[in-house]
Amino acid sequence: MATSAASDIRTAELKQPVDVAEYLFRRLHEVGVRSVHGLPGDYNLVALDYIPKAGLNWVGNVNELNAGYAADGYARIKGISALVTTFGVGELSAINAVAGAFSEYVPIVHIVGTPSTISQADGQLLHHTLGNGDFNVFSNMSRSVSCVVSLLNDPHMAATLIDNAIRECYIQSRPVYLALPTDMVQKKIEGERLKTPIDLKFPPNNEEKEDYVVDVVLKYLHAAKNPVVLVDACAIRHRVLNEVHQLVEKSGMPVFVTPMGKGAINETLPNYGGVYAGDGSNDGVRERVESSDLVLSIGAIKSDFNTAGFSYRVSQLSTIDFHSTYTRVKFSEYPNVRMNGVLQKVIAKMGRLNIEDGPKPTNKVPSAEEESSSETITQAWFWPTMGQWLQPKDIVITETGTANFGIWETRFPADVTAVSQVLWGSIGYATGSCQGVALAAKEMGIKRTILFTGDGSFQLTAQEVSTMIRQKLNPIIFVICNEGYTIERFIHGMDATYNDVQEWKYKDLVAVFGGEEGKTARTYQVKTKKEVETLFKDEEFATAPFLQFVELYMPKEDAPRALKLTAEASARTNAEK
Amino acid sequence: MATSAASDIRTAELKQPVDVAEYLFRRLHEVGVRSVHGLPGDYNLVALDYIPKAGLNWVGNVNELNAGYAADGYARIKGISALVTTFGVGELSAINAVAGAFSEYVPIVHIVGTPSTISQADGQLLHHTLGNGDFNVFSNMSRSVSCVVSLLNDPHMAATLIDNAIRECYIQSRPVYLALPTDMVQKKIEGERLKTPIDLKFPPNNEEKEDYVVDVVLKYLHAAKNPVVLVDACAIRHRVLNEVHQLVEKSGMPVFVTPMGKGAINETLPNYGGVYAGDGSNDGVRERVESSDLVLSIGAIKSDFNTAGFSYRVSQLSTIDFHSTYTRVKFSEYPNVRMNGVLQKVIAKMGRLNIEDGPKPTNKVPSAEEESSSETITQAWFWPTMGQWLQPKDIVITETGTANFGIWETRFPADVTAVSQVLWGSIGYATGSCQGVALAAKEMGIKRTILFTGDGSFQLTAQEVSTMIRQKLNPIIFVICNEGYTIERFIHGMDATYNDVQEWKYKDLVAVFGGEEGKTARTYQVKTKKEVETLFKDEEFATAPFLQFVELYMPKEDAPRALKLTAEASARTNAEK
Repeated sequence: MATSAASDIRTAELKQPVDVAEYLFRRLHEVGVRSVHGLPGDYNLVALDYIPKAGLNWVGNVNELNAGYAADGYARIKGISALVTTFGVGELSAINAVAGAFSEYVPIVHIVGTPSTISQADGQLLHHTLGNGDFNVFSNMSRSVSCVVSLLNDPHMAATLIDNAIRECYIQSRPVYLALPTDMVQKKIEGERLKTPIDLKFPPNNEEKEDYVVDVVLKYLHAAKNPVVLVDACAIRHRVLNEVHQLVEKSGMPVFVTPMGKGAINETLPNYGGVYAGDGSNDGVRERVESSDLVLSIGAIKSDFNTAGFSYRVSQLSTIDFHSTYTRVKFSEYPNVRMNGVLQKVIAKMGRLNIEDGPKPTNKVPSAEEESSSETITQAWFWPTMGQWLQPKDIVITETGTANFGIWETRFPADVTAVSQVLWGSIGYATGSCQGVALAAKEMGIKRTILFTGDGSFQLTAQEVSTMIRQKLNPIIFVICNEGYTIERFIHGMDATYNDVQEWKYKDLVAVFGGEEGKTARTYQVKTKKEVETLFKDEEFATAPFLQFVELYMPKEDAPRALKLTAEASARTNAEK
Repeated sequence: MATSAASDIRTAELKQPVDVAEYLFRRLHEVGVRSVHGLPGDYNLVALDYIPKAGLNWVGNVNELNAGYAADGYARIKGISALVTTFGVGELSAINAVAGAFSEYVPIVHIVGTPSTISQADGQLLHHTLGNGDFNVFSNMSRSVSCVVSLLNDPHMAATLIDNAIRECYIQSRPVYLALPTDMVQKKIEGERLKTPIDLKFPPNNEEKEDYVVDVVLKYLHAAKNPVVLVDACAIRHRVLNEVHQLVEKSGMPVFVTPMGKGAINETLPNYGGVYAGDGSNDGVRERVESSDLVLSIGAIKSDFNTAGFSYRVSQLSTIDFHSTYTRVKFSEYPNVRMNGVLQKVIAKMGRLNIEDGPKPTNKVPSAEEESSSETITQAWFWPTMGQWLQPKDIVITETGTANFGIWETRFPADVTAVSQVLWGSIGYATGSCQGVALAAKEMGIKRTILFTGDGSFQLTAQEVSTMIRQKLNPIIFVICNEGYTIERFIHGMDATYNDVQEWKYKDLVAVFGGEEGKTARTYQVKTKKEVETLFKDEEFATAPFLQFVELYMPKEDAPRALKLTAEASARTNAEK
C-alpha cells in the first residue's frame, strides 16, 4: 500500500499551525464569501466541518447543478463565491454551471472533495470512479472551464496554491478548481500567512503604453462629432463600472447598454438612451448608435443573442474597444492594456466633448397595447408595466427565453442589478441563480430579488425553491406560464410536441417544499392585466418578508419582438448551407 | 464566410437517398430502441422532427441529467438506449449520467445537436459556447466517458460512423457520443445500407486459444472439492446470463451474487445461496464462499461498495475470473478470451462435479425484529418483508444509500431484474432511472417497476416523476423518509446539519405534476409496520394501472447492517494517513 504522496510539515516548523481546510475557508471569508454553496458527499464531509468554524454559512443545495447556478448568482452580487462538491458524481453534475460561469466571467471557487492521496496512489477501485484507476479524469475535464486547476496533494504547496487560485479567480473573474483529498483536510500548514491578505488588485498597465493609448483615445474622442458609450457584460464582470459612471456623468455622452450590459448603467441618468442590440434595439436607439462617428464600446461580448442575431451595423472604423486584457482603437490593437487604468486617465484628461442627444427610454406601454381592450397579458404590455413597479436597488433575474428578451423593454430605476445568462443561455439557470442572488442580497441588506422565468425552464431546476425556503429568503418569483419552450418554438417547431411541457400546478410547489401560506410564503396566480395591476399596487406583495411565488399566464405563441428577430436569425444560421 | 466543411453527396449517386437524421433514427429502431430520451434545444430541433417518422417515441424529459439517468435505466432493460441533448448546456448537464453509464457498462447512444459546420468553421460567437471559438471542447470532455466519439461533419462518412458507433456501444456496452451539426441533419446519404442490419455479434475468440482455456478451466473444475459460482455486474452488462444459468442449473454448484450482480440469478433455484460481499454477506454465505476451493467469478467489479469495503477473503489461487475482455485462471491471464465462448464450451464438456450445499436464503424477518413489539419500520424488518410481497418479473430499482444495501436482505422471486448504481453511486440516479425503466417495462409488457429511494436522494431529481406521469407509466415509488443523507451520516457527521435536508411533503408532488388522485395516480403514507403490511396485502396497490407514490417512514439513524460496515470502511479509507 502506498503512503501519502507528500510528507507532512513538522508542526514544530509552524508558527501558527492551521489545518488546510481552515486555511481555505478563512481565505474565502477574507475575500467576502459568507455562504458556501454545495452538497455533502463522503469525500468532502470532514472539510464541511470547518465551514461554520470559519464564520461561514453552509447552504446545502438540493442538487449540484442548482448549487453551481446559485454560486454563480451569489458571485454576481458579492464579487466571488464558493461551491463544494464531491468527486466525480458531484462535480460533473455541476460542470454545466461552472462552464456557464467560465463563459460569462463569473468567479466561483469550486472545491472538490476527492479520495485520499493514498487511495489515488494505490489506484483503488472506489465508488464515484470510472473503475479504471484514473483519478485525474474529472479535474482534467474541468481544465477547459476553469482558469486555474490545482490539486492540493501536498501540504507544502497547499497555501500557495489556495492563495493563487483565489487571486486568479477574482482577477480573471472566472471559475477555479481546487481538489481537496480527504487526507489533506486536516494537515497542518502555516497560519501566519493569513495575516497578509491576498492581493486582489489588478496588475497595473505598463505606464508608458497606457499613456500612449490614452492619448490616442483622447485624440479621437475630442474630434468626434457625436460620440456614444456602449456598455456590455465585461464592464460589469471586470469591475469597471465606477469608471464608466464617471465617464458618462462627466462627459454627458449618450450611453447605451447591450442586453448583457443591462443594469450596468443608472437608467435614470438623463443621458441613458436604452438597449442597443442591432435590429432588436429599443426605439430610436439603433439610429442613434449606428449614426455615431465614435462608439466607446466597453467590455463587449458580441454574441448572437446579445446582438439580436449579429445585427450590429457599427463599423470597427468608428469603434474603440475597452477590455480587461486589451484595448483596440479602430484596427490598432494594444494587448495587455486593461481598460480600468485607461478610462481613469481618459476621464481625468478629457475636455469638453461634442454631444448630440439620444433617445429617452420610458416604461410607457406601446400604444397598440394601451388601446387594446383585451385582458390577456401580453409580453409587449408586461415588461414596461413591470418596469413601473420596480424599485431602486432591486435585483432582477431573467431566464433565457421570453424574460431575457422582454427585459430589454423595461427601464430600470436607479441602482437596479440585472442578472441573466445571455451567452451561455442554459435554461434552468435563473431559478438556481435566484437562490444565490437572494442570499447575497440578504447578506448585503438589499431588500428585493425578483425572478422571471418560463414554465419550461423552471421545471429543470424547480427544487431550488426548497433551498430558498430553507434559507429563509424572500425572492419574488414569477413563473411565466405559457405552455412550454416558447423561444424554441420561434426557432423551429411552433406546434411541435417536443416544445410542450407537462402542465404543473406550479405555485403548489411552495407548500410541498415547506412554505406555509401567509406565514413563511405566499402564492399568487394572475391571468389578466387587471390582476397584474392589482398585484403591483399591493403593498404587502411589494414588501413581504418571505418568499412569494406568482403564476403569470401569457399566451403560448406570444414573444417579445427582439426574441422573434433573434430566433429567426438563429434558424437561418442553423440551416445555412 | 466559410462553407460546409465537406461536400454533399450528389443525389444522383444514391440508390435510396435518406437524410442523415432519418438514417440514424432508423438504425436506432433496428437495434431495439423505441423511445428516445432528452430535451429539445435549438441545435437539435430539426433532428427531433425525424423521431416520430422513424417510429420512435420522444420522451421529453424535465432536465438533461434526469434524461441521462432515464436513458441509463432504459438501456439496462432494453439492451441499448438513445439520448438527445443540445450543444454545451444540454450535454454537460447530462455528463454525470453518461459517466455513470461508462463506469457501469451501460450502452447509451448520446446524440448532441451542435452548431452547423459553417458556424464552427467561422468560429462564430454563438450562445451555448465558451465564447472562445472552440467547438470541440465539449466533445473532448466526453471522450473520457464514451467508448466512441464521432463528429458527423461529413455526409460521406456519416453512415459508417453511425453504424460503427452503435455497434461499439452495444458490444462494449458503454456510451458513445455522436455530434450532429444542424446543417448535417438533412444531408442525403445512401439508404441502401439500411437493408443490411448492423452486426451486433461479439467477435469470436481465437478457437485454439479458447479451447486451451476451456481445458484449463475444466481441469480445475473437475478437481475442485466444493466449487461455487459468484456472479457480478459484468455478467449482466456483457450479456452472459444465459450461459451462467445453464452452468448453474446443469452443474448444481452453489451460486452467489455480489450486490452489483443482484438479479442476475433466479433466486428460487435450489442452489442459489444469497449475496456475497465479504463482511456484508448474507447469513452463512461468507463462510461457504470463502471456504470454497474454487470460485468461478463471473464479471467481477470488486469496488468498495460492492465488497462491503474491500472485505473479500477469497484467494486468487482459488479463483477463475471470467470477463468480456479476458479470462484469468488463478494467476494465469488469457487476454482477449471473452467469457461467453469459454462458458458455452465448459458447459458442454463439463462432467459431474463435487457439490457441497450452500445456505438457503429466505425472506424471513430476523428473530429480534419478529419478537419486537415496536411498530417502527426498521430497515432490518422492511427488506425481507418487502421480499415476500415481490412478484416474478418485477423490476426493482434501488438508490445509493439505505436501499442499495437493504436490498441485499431481500430474496427475489424468479425473473426479477434489479437496477442500481453501486460503483458510480450518484445520488438521484434511481428516480431518473425509474422513468426509463418503467417506460422500457411498458414497451416489453412487464407489469411492475418498483423504486426505492431515500428522501435526500429523491430531492435531486424529483421532477422526473412528472415525466412518468406524462408518459402514463405505472411505477410504484417508495420514498424512504428518514430526514436526510443517512449513508453520509454513517460515514461522517451523524448529527451534522449538512446531512439534513429540507422536509418536503413528498407525496403532494404527484398532484403538482399533474397526477389525479385515484384517477391517474395514487399516493400513500406508511409509518408503522402494520400500515406496511396492510399496503402489501392491498390488491389494488399491487396491480394499479397508474403511478403510485408511497412515503415510507423509517428512523433517521437506522441503516442496514451492510451499509454500516461499508460506511465504517469508507471513513477509515478517507482518514488513512
